[in-house]
Amino acid sequence: MIEVVILGNGRTAHFLISQFIACNQIKIKQWYMRQPKGDESQFLIETTTALTSVIKNADIYFICISDDAIASFSKSLTVSGLVVHTAGSIPLQILNDHQQKGVFYPLQTLSKNALPQIDRVPICIEAEKKDDFDLLTRLASLINAKYYSVDSTQRATLHLAAVFANNFSNHLYAISADLCKKNQLPFEILHPLIIETAQKLQTLPPQEAQTGPAIRNDHQTLKKHLKQLSTTPYMELYESLTQSIQKYHEEKL
Amino acid sequence: MIEVVILGNGRTAHFLISQFIACNQIKIKQWYMRQPKGDESQFLIETTTALTSVIKNADIYFICISDDAIASFSKSLTVSGLVVHTAGSIPLQILNDHQQKGVFYPLQTLSKNALPQIDRVPICIEAEKKDDFDLLTRLASLINAKYYSVDSTQRATLHLAAVFANNFSNHLYAISADLCKKNQLPFEILHPLIIETAQKLQTLPPQEAQTGPAIRNDHQTLKKHLKQLSTTPYMELYESLTQSIQKYHEEKL
Repeated sequence: MIEVVILGNGRTAHFLISQFIACNQIKIKQWYMRQPKGDESQFLIETTTALTSVIKNADIYFICISDDAIASFSKSLTVSGLVVHTAGSIPLQILNDHQQKGVFYPLQTLSKNALPQIDRVPICIEAEKKDDFDLLTRLASLINAKYYSVDSTQRATLHLAAVFANNFSNHLYAISADLCKKNQLPFEILHPLIIETAQKLQTLPPQEAQTGPAIRNDHQTLKKHLKQLSTTPYMELYESLTQSIQKYHEEKL
Repeated sequence: MIEVVILGNGRTAHFLISQFIACNQIKIKQWYMRQPKGDESQFLIETTTALTSVIKNADIYFICISDDAIASFSKSLTVSGLVVHTAGSIPLQILNDHQQKGVFYPLQTLSKNALPQIDRVPICIEAEKKDDFDLLTRLASLINAKYYSVDSTQRATLHLAAVFANNFSNHLYAISADLCKKNQLPFEILHPLIIETAQKLQTLPPQEAQTGPAIRNDHQTLKKHLKQLSTTPYMELYESLTQSIQKYHEEKL
């Protein structure tokens, strides 16, 4: 039995609880939160809002609070046991006040009301000591998660790569939706294409899947598109992305 | 029974053939191609490489050739019946030499070896005459395709919107993959996040799903990311995309 304490009540906390609660080899001993949101009682877990009341001898403590607050929170947490944070862009060393420290970072976009299936949430694991690393991988295995060994430098890269793959591509969808709306077109026409483009990655690396006027260096279409965009705020971004594609695939042009 | 002739042997031609051949109310009377690729015989369709031999009295002629070649090809095609092209960025008027003209544009990324399911290929339909429009929608219904009435101006917008949603987002995946590779990370860690981001569109408009340091105006993370990118070719694009997100969501910042 692995005994854990959850610290925080945001989306990551909810995600971990939903996974741990379903596994009879993991026991959530306690759940700390600064400010209850009112929906915590449904989980039938002992809760506390006093940091001083947090039990001292659990196996793992999961810090699931906002990135900026982790450093000072870690300092004020006086427990024995493995202390881990769950943040993509924060190095392991932020937990230096603790003997045993680690990272357990679920790489997925989490929303409280529609939690993703665990097989769609890769877990990035880091720890200083082998025993701690093994404990975290055992925990990941118990909830059937796919896990990767990712150190702090790699995790910072992964966080940045995720900004391109998730935040930035979502913005392109938003531009796409705006162009549709301004021309009385339902954006849903483009959903299948977007999903196909994303799923294709599983069989074809994106650099090989690249298509479109930029990589073909199709001047006529590029000119036409820029003209179409001239009354929108998206002309410069179209140019930046076109140039970036051409630079990336320079040898092909 | 709707009798059709397919003109061209690229990916769109293969896609249409694969759909039409499975429907017993559609008959592919003939398949014209300038240059056989050798794999055409498997479909057991009468083929020809002589434009003059193309039969004159089919119900619909599908021009499935490269965008640039459609204008001159249309001029040299002397048939009666409804002539349609299948291109996203070409207006209907390019077929002005024909009495009956239309567009039947499958909005999807097609590859010969992995043809998508028809329920993932929306068809954009346009025609000048009501009877021709009805014939094309009947055909779309026969192959169980979802179709939309899209005029030439709207289709040009849709083609442009697809560049953002497909070509440009694929390029962001490629950058993401490159960042992973340079840091000894398998790009597959990001696949679930990318697919989740794409699928989320079906329940949440992309402008509402936007997350990340740009929309939070999180200076510290933005600075850190730019520093990480300083040795890559992606710094300027990161800045352009960040600015574009902040401009798009100005009222929120």
